[in-house]
Amino acid sequence: MTSSTLMVQKKVISLTKPIIEDAITNLYCNNFPASLCIADLGCSSGPNTLFAVLEVVTTMDKVRKKMGRQLPEIQVFLNDLPGNDFNTIFKSLPKFQKDLQKTMGAGAESCFVTGVPGSFYGRLFPSKSLHFVHSSYSLQWLSQVPQGLESNKGNIYMASSSPPSVLKAYYEQFQRDFSMFLRCRSEELLEGGGTVLTFLGRRSEDPSSKECCYIWELLAVALNDMVSEGLIAEEKMDSFNIPQYTPSPAEVKCEVEKEGSFIINRLEVSEVNWNAYHGEFCPSDAHKDGGYNVAKLMRAVAEPLLVSHFGDGIIEEVFSRYKNIVADRMTREKTEFVNVTVSMTKRG
Amino acid sequence: MTSSTLMVQKKVISLTKPIIEDAITNLYCNNFPASLCIADLGCSSGPNTLFAVLEVVTTMDKVRKKMGRQLPEIQVFLNDLPGNDFNTIFKSLPKFQKDLQKTMGAGAESCFVTGVPGSFYGRLFPSKSLHFVHSSYSLQWLSQVPQGLESNKGNIYMASSSPPSVLKAYYEQFQRDFSMFLRCRSEELLEGGGTVLTFLGRRSEDPSSKECCYIWELLAVALNDMVSEGLIAEEKMDSFNIPQYTPSPAEVKCEVEKEGSFIINRLEVSEVNWNAYHGEFCPSDAHKDGGYNVAKLMRAVAEPLLVSHFGDGIIEEVFSRYKNIVADRMTREKTEFVNVTVSMTKRG
Repeated sequence: MTSSTLMVQKKVISLTKPIIEDAITNLYCNNFPASLCIADLGCSSGPNTLFAVLEVVTTMDKVRKKMGRQLPEIQVFLNDLPGNDFNTIFKSLPKFQKDLQKTMGAGAESCFVTGVPGSFYGRLFPSKSLHFVHSSYSLQWLSQVPQGLESNKGNIYMASSSPPSVLKAYYEQFQRDFSMFLRCRSEELLEGGGTVLTFLGRRSEDPSSKECCYIWELLAVALNDMVSEGLIAEEKMDSFNIPQYTPSPAEVKCEVEKEGSFIINRLEVSEVNWNAYHGEFCPSDAHKDGGYNVAKLMRAVAEPLLVSHFGDGIIEEVFSRYKNIVADRMTREKTEFVNVTVSMTKRG
Repeated sequence: MTSSTLMVQKKVISLTKPIIEDAITNLYCNNFPASLCIADLGCSSGPNTLFAVLEVVTTMDKVRKKMGRQLPEIQVFLNDLPGNDFNTIFKSLPKFQKDLQKTMGAGAESCFVTGVPGSFYGRLFPSKSLHFVHSSYSLQWLSQVPQGLESNKGNIYMASSSPPSVLKAYYEQFQRDFSMFLRCRSEELLEGGGTVLTFLGRRSEDPSSKECCYIWELLAVALNDMVSEGLIAEEKMDSFNIPQYTPSPAEVKCEVEKEGSFIINRLEVSEVNWNAYHGEFCPSDAHKDGGYNVAKLMRAVAEPLLVSHFGDGIIEEVFSRYKNIVADRMTREKTEFVNVTVSMTKRG
């Protein structure tokens, strides 16, 4: 992961902290277990993996102090696909324990961290075994590229020029995946258990809205330029699509209500600038280097997908072009990621 | 891990299967949870990691069938030190799930595997969260090389020529470590929970007995030869000691009784030939290649320790000499590993 990706994710976790605090207060109001099981789904592997856990655990500590309760033992389950680099996470645990001790003092040793390999679009835990589920910036990833995108020529994601059948295929894949996610978690969470999920999403009801698709459209521009110069075969370009869906709050709500196991407590939208340094601390050249930062961020996300489809020969060229395209647009337009966060309680 | 190591470990797991079956039957007699949490401590990383789990889980399935019960959901915690290669274990999980399905049919998908990095000489799990703990061929490893081995010159482990203070230092380290292990597990296991632990051990009450020390003494012969040829510095040799203790059944029993949380159900001794092919199937040259196999087995175990103390320059030479020494002794003497297995129930 690049530092730009890390900055965006870290900012998102910080933005959602009040929602997490609220959810944990709710959890404590429902019951006071001596031992809490919490899961972070799609934890990835990098400094933010344990940053998210640190935020959740220290929030628990803060809430239980406010309510005058003993610190529970906390079992933390870190989940990602079996190909995720769990070794690196595990090797950084001693440092994490020290950070935890600094923030929490005694009691940090009652936090037990485990790794859970597998897709969160299937069951990962025994029934009624979890108190709290957290997921940030992972659920926009679909379980697969939707079927039926043959007509999405020249695009690599939903775009204003995508035919309705493409938008429908993407939406239906999101519905299947997210409803499966909800069904699995509803089986794994205890009654009264809580969950806070943050999607990369959009405000608009138009799934091809610029706010979520623009960043991919600019990558398509770079790729199409290379097609027209004969550097990429047109058929290759036409068969490449990103397995992502960035839902609106209403779409998230709709699936939750259909599934029926959860009560929505909060459903909120927030923004982070494409260039995460924007508006926060500002290392010299951060603004000037916006294109560079965003290209790095998107490269961390898109490179594995591009490499497995196009091979690795085109990568440097693609991102060099992309960087210039992004830098140009950023000077002229408002460029933000939209986050949709939902906080829910498992029904009794 | 080499195939020789794997063979020995696999044989040990198979040897202890009736004891595991007994322990699980006991567990079912005590209660019938809808969800079982089991841990394999010191799971290592190789084909045997999941072989041990497969044996435990299929035994559970067999026992519950015999008792006419529904298959419970099973959460399996695989533990080893944070430096263990969990990535490789996790990548082999899809194959494991298929193997499980072949043996168990439907229900295999109710087995959830997780990884737990950390030392089993400390707490790894929340209080009263485990039903069954398994550990095979790991508990003979001490948490550290004992202090006070300065007088163990010319030896690398306990040996017939070790002064009493050395034997005492080793034994006291074993007592500290194993009693800590028992205290931690007694907190983590539920009342009525079971544990089956297999040590590399010995029958004799003499801790420098040939049955457990001989294989290391032969490695010391190789190292001492290299010292006398000036290939290894004498001080280096004198300060090298293996952090292992191979206890007798009585020593295991003594610590369990002192700690007080467990009832011993079975305490048994078994043997495996140094050359694990011996007496089982017999690939051509297996007997002739005994020295080679044992040297490979011991190399897998000892190489990291030797490299961190002596550097990697001497390794090929050490094991080439060791192989010849071992081959010579194997033709003239009975050469076996002794296993001490204890099966216990957590008191109410």
